[in-house]
Amino acid sequence: MKNIAIIGASGYTGAQITSLINAEANLSIQGLYVSENSLDKGKPLSELYPIYSHISLCLNPLTDDAKHTIVATVDAVVLATDHAVSLHLAAWFYQQGVTVFDLSGAYRFQDLAQYPKWYGFTHEYPEALAEAVYGLAEWNAAKIINSKLIAVPGCYPTASLMALKPITHLLTDTFPVINAVSGVTGAGRKAQLQTSFCEVSLTPYGVLGHRHQPEIVTQLGQEVIFTPHLGNFKRGILATITVKLKLDTSASDISQAFECYSASELVTVKQNQFPKVDDVVLTPNCHIGWKYDEATGYLVIASAIDNLMKGAASQALQCIKIHFDALQNT
Amino acid sequence: MKNIAIIGASGYTGAQITSLINAEANLSIQGLYVSENSLDKGKPLSELYPIYSHISLCLNPLTDDAKHTIVATVDAVVLATDHAVSLHLAAWFYQQGVTVFDLSGAYRFQDLAQYPKWYGFTHEYPEALAEAVYGLAEWNAAKIINSKLIAVPGCYPTASLMALKPITHLLTDTFPVINAVSGVTGAGRKAQLQTSFCEVSLTPYGVLGHRHQPEIVTQLGQEVIFTPHLGNFKRGILATITVKLKLDTSASDISQAFECYSASELVTVKQNQFPKVDDVVLTPNCHIGWKYDEATGYLVIASAIDNLMKGAASQALQCIKIHFDALQNT
Amino acid sequence: MKNIAIIGASGYTGAQITSLINAEANLSIQGLYVSENSLDKGKPLSELYPIYSHISLCLNPLTDDAKHTIVATVDAVVLATDHAVSLHLAAWFYQQGVTVFDLSGAYRFQDLAQYPKWYGFTHEYPEALAEAVYGLAEWNAAKIINSKLIAVPGCYPTASLMALKPITHLLTDTFPVINAVSGVTGAGRKAQLQTSFCEVSLTPYGVLGHRHQPEIVTQLGQEVIFTPHLGNFKRGILATITVKLKLDTSASDISQAFECYSASELVTVKQNQFPKVDDVVLTPNCHIGWKYDEATGYLVIASAIDNLMKGAASQALQCIKIHFDALQNT
Amino acid sequence: MKNIAIIGASGYTGAQITSLINAEANLSIQGLYVSENSLDKGKPLSELYPIYSHISLCLNPLTDDAKHTIVATVDAVVLATDHAVSLHLAAWFYQQGVTVFDLSGAYRFQDLAQYPKWYGFTHEYPEALAEAVYGLAEWNAAKIINSKLIAVPGCYPTASLMALKPITHLLTDTFPVINAVSGVTGAGRKAQLQTSFCEVSLTPYGVLGHRHQPEIVTQLGQEVIFTPHLGNFKRGILATITVKLKLDTSASDISQAFECYSASELVTVKQNQFPKVDDVVLTPNCHIGWKYDEATGYLVIASAIDNLMKGAASQALQCIKIHFDALQNT
Repeated sequence: MKNIAIIGASGYTGAQITSLINAEANLSIQGLYVSENSLDKGKPLSELYPIYSHISLCLNPLTDDAKHTIVATVDAVVLATDHAVSLHLAAWFYQQGVTVFDLSGAYRFQDLAQYPKWYGFTHEYPEALAEAVYGLAEWNAAKIINSKLIAVPGCYPTASLMALKPITHLLTDTFPVINAVSGVTGAGRKAQLQTSFCEVSLTPYGVLGHRHQPEIVTQLGQEVIFTPHLGNFKRGILATITVKLKLDTSASDISQAFECYSASELVTVKQNQFPKVDDVVLTPNCHIGWKYDEATGYLVIASAIDNLMKGAASQALQCIKIHFDALQNT
Repeated sequence: MKNIAIIGASGYTGAQITSLINAEANLSIQGLYVSENSLDKGKPLSELYPIYSHISLCLNPLTDDAKHTIVATVDAVVLATDHAVSLHLAAWFYQQGVTVFDLSGAYRFQDLAQYPKWYGFTHEYPEALAEAVYGLAEWNAAKIINSKLIAVPGCYPTASLMALKPITHLLTDTFPVINAVSGVTGAGRKAQLQTSFCEVSLTPYGVLGHRHQPEIVTQLGQEVIFTPHLGNFKRGILATITVKLKLDTSASDISQAFECYSASELVTVKQNQFPKVDDVVLTPNCHIGWKYDEATGYLVIASAIDNLMKGAASQALQCIKIHFDALQNT
Repeated sequence: MKNIAIIGASGYTGAQITSLINAEANLSIQGLYVSENSLDKGKPLSELYPIYSHISLCLNPLTDDAKHTIVATVDAVVLATDHAVSLHLAAWFYQQGVTVFDLSGAYRFQDLAQYPKWYGFTHEYPEALAEAVYGLAEWNAAKIINSKLIAVPGCYPTASLMALKPITHLLTDTFPVINAVSGVTGAGRKAQLQTSFCEVSLTPYGVLGHRHQPEIVTQLGQEVIFTPHLGNFKRGILATITVKLKLDTSASDISQAFECYSASELVTVKQNQFPKVDDVVLTPNCHIGWKYDEATGYLVIASAIDNLMKGAASQALQCIKIHFDALQNT
Repeated sequence: MKNIAIIGASGYTGAQITSLINAEANLSIQGLYVSENSLDKGKPLSELYPIYSHISLCLNPLTDDAKHTIVATVDAVVLATDHAVSLHLAAWFYQQGVTVFDLSGAYRFQDLAQYPKWYGFTHEYPEALAEAVYGLAEWNAAKIINSKLIAVPGCYPTASLMALKPITHLLTDTFPVINAVSGVTGAGRKAQLQTSFCEVSLTPYGVLGHRHQPEIVTQLGQEVIFTPHLGNFKRGILATITVKLKLDTSASDISQAFECYSASELVTVKQNQFPKVDDVVLTPNCHIGWKYDEATGYLVIASAIDNLMKGAASQALQCIKIHFDALQNT
């Protein structure tokens, strides 16, 4: 049994990871936390999320006392906090020897220069950062086991990398074009005009300048054009990816490349058949479909995940399970 | 040609009435106004509402100078402002001799006692109020012609009264039960958690305490149970109304009662056939369907309107046309 | 371990109950079945429902051989078939001594006269029917344990009865008015114009003539007005119920009445707070909210369930667990 | 005043063009027609589409007599029929000297070889086809004026070509990548499982093989990768297009290229600002937004139209007005 504190539990991602950990026989929740000045402190989680009416935990303020109690009692903390908050909390807990699963972007780049550009802060914790590993579960298991600071990937990068990493050896100079549409939960729970019910309608945003573009590029080792869109649905991401492959690539080369997932129970790959967003909503799964035109060398891949699950909370849970290894045996 | 100033033009209702008046050959827009401290002042309307890309008007701050210019140049003002703002503006313009079409609730009750209870303010303008008429277009044409202060009805009361007024003589002591579902535009344009995209899902609100209940009761002359709901759509209202009719009422009595609309081109009444919300969205129409069970004396009526159109802006336009009479002939 | 065959597994309800039983440690699935002339026979369930990509079962044709194998090997059958199909299958399996959980309407009325009127067939199996019990789980546990033919309630009756049964002693002659809105899955998986994406928009249907009205009346012992609506969402039902209570009923009388659910972990009751449809979607829960006006004696209750879960599949699972009693101990 | 017959008026496109022509002061409707064996023949249009409650026209069967009456009385026919039906009807009316506005794909390619491949039929009317012009209104006005057979473009090609035609001179060998999402009305009114309410969820279809790809390529004179998607909304198309431009192309080159639309009142072009689908729904407008990265030479353009309006009916109306020229003066 591993004991876990969840910080930032009032947001969509924090509530989702709470519900997942709560359902695991071998994990227990030490407590749920929100910032000391949150208006939600003291409330039961189920007041904010009536769908979790079966969870009786309350949102505690993350006081200094609470932080020390956490250090003394948990096996790990999950940070579902804002990037600028995770930055400090992850370093602090890491320094106290607590394993950290951070769902923010604060530890996803090894390159310090990226932070001011994409997150608006200077990264002050190079030591902690040096230990951080990128928690793309199907690809980095060995590192996830051995590190005490796991930076769980962003939702768009997860959808994109799951589709592109198997075929990196087949790519050419032509930039892959990633068009992705995310459900509105991706924008978080705070009320904003652009995510008001009446304002939402399919539209691109962050064009040629979204912070997930360099995250994808770093992990893929290849430039890409990434165009995110806001879709008129609550959950899920569909990334449709167009790539020009190397001369003489055959469909069976691609088939073979995707064999890498044959043992991954959460990943489904189909040729000439494409996923719908709702096929993965509320699941930890990634559904991939692809079609290849040998005549032109163009490949179209679609990759669907739930942005709050495989794109955040359920991938964090995968990382927790991988890290604590044979949870079933403890 | 009548010249009209639109105040509160940045909201959903204000933008809608702007678009309607802009399309009328015999009406011109003197100007669009927002409050002096609005963040939207100076912006083109089409920046807030790209769908109105063909309207080049800007949102002017409603300064004292602007108010005096309005008085000097317009035939009427349309107030699409908050209740507490309309309260003062309507009285002021009325006192200057300008005809006022007010889309708020500030002049819908003749009974002063209702305002503190339902709108949280004391009504300080009994003289203006005494002149105010209730702008339910199909029912109050004569009054609308003769008054210079028209209180355009609320969206729920319009949907409800259009269905119930024809059959008032058939009602009994048993309270009519009005269940209505409104699109989210009914809550206005301001960002709020409960109207955030991810939070919206069919739910009742204002149960046994919504301010439109006494408005309906006053205009109908009969108590009702009114339960509004927020629906997961942008526009439209469907009111489903259950009433127990007087002993020996026949279906043909009801048919005959609804004949009152036979000359109303915007009202469609069908027996044993019920409207969908989308049948009226973006139209000025009211669609009514009803079915009667002679055995039990129960009648079910459904009434559908677009909350921003017949429930606000297009009904205001009806009032303007009625008031200025033979617009075509001027 | 109990072994269960699921017949009619290709529909929305059948697929849902498959997924629920598949997830239960103490239940196994003997097989999934569709009719012999179904176009889906032979297909994996996951081809129809990619979201169940983790379930590898196929849809077998329900041949005579298959029926005899089922009888020889199962502890129970679940029928997620059409009313007219369940009619015969339930009787046949019951006669072979197999416990039947039927999700259709074919065994919900004890009164034979109801079937021709509401389901268009004469009920030919009075003996089987005499044994049938109504599987409203929180209310009929004792009967569910002791019968081998459980008629799982309809979705609207479940939502309505969960709200009304606790307060039957407080009702008066005035008919309760039940306005309910169902997600489109309630109409089944077959392509039809009225459930095509572009045609769906909130509307009443089956007004003063829906077959769930007499089911509610029978189980409640009181006439009601029941008006179902199709809503523009996939899953969930919200029933908003208006009732006139006996003179001198107090709010605390109502509170006390709803105490009947205090030990029911799937039922949540709140005063002056109302559920959203999405609060229960994909859960087995029933969320009830109510508000009472002592001055008029009117009570408004809202009851939310997932139509495919508590309104069908998860209630069937409750019945299975109740019937097979201490599943955990086997 | 021009008199027009509308054939195929029961479909989404036919009903839309009916409503548009009905609203034009200088156009009259000779009649609405459906095929002789349509189940809708004889019905008022408003029975199928209650939103058109103000239009009292009925759907007549297109008998031989009706065809001859049409020839004798109209100035033009609009064909909103299936490709294989338009093929013959367009040729026949054209041969009788009637001007034809065809909304199908039957006359969009000059190259006869395309038809068997993309539409499954051999084109038997080369003479009529030789006269056909492609009705992309902003680009082909001169031809539209002079031809009696106008092939109104498909919805995806319209959205794509409006964005790409201005910059053809800046394109390189790298294929433009067009990702487009269409509302479900694009699939027509016929009930089908994949467009059932509960089945619709964002997904690609027709990948590397949609018939609108060669239509775009033909009109653009450049290969493209075109990936259409079904979106969970009723109307509208958003095409997001990624193109690699010629070396040394500057942002102002692009600005200048889009100046071609400066006199087009239905086209709005913005730099660094992107349209939402709902910005154009129910309008004849095309909204274009673009952003350019000079460092990489990649340009992203988004183009939004209403698929039934600018993508079909309102573009047909543009063609009608262009063809009959100074309609206002007749």
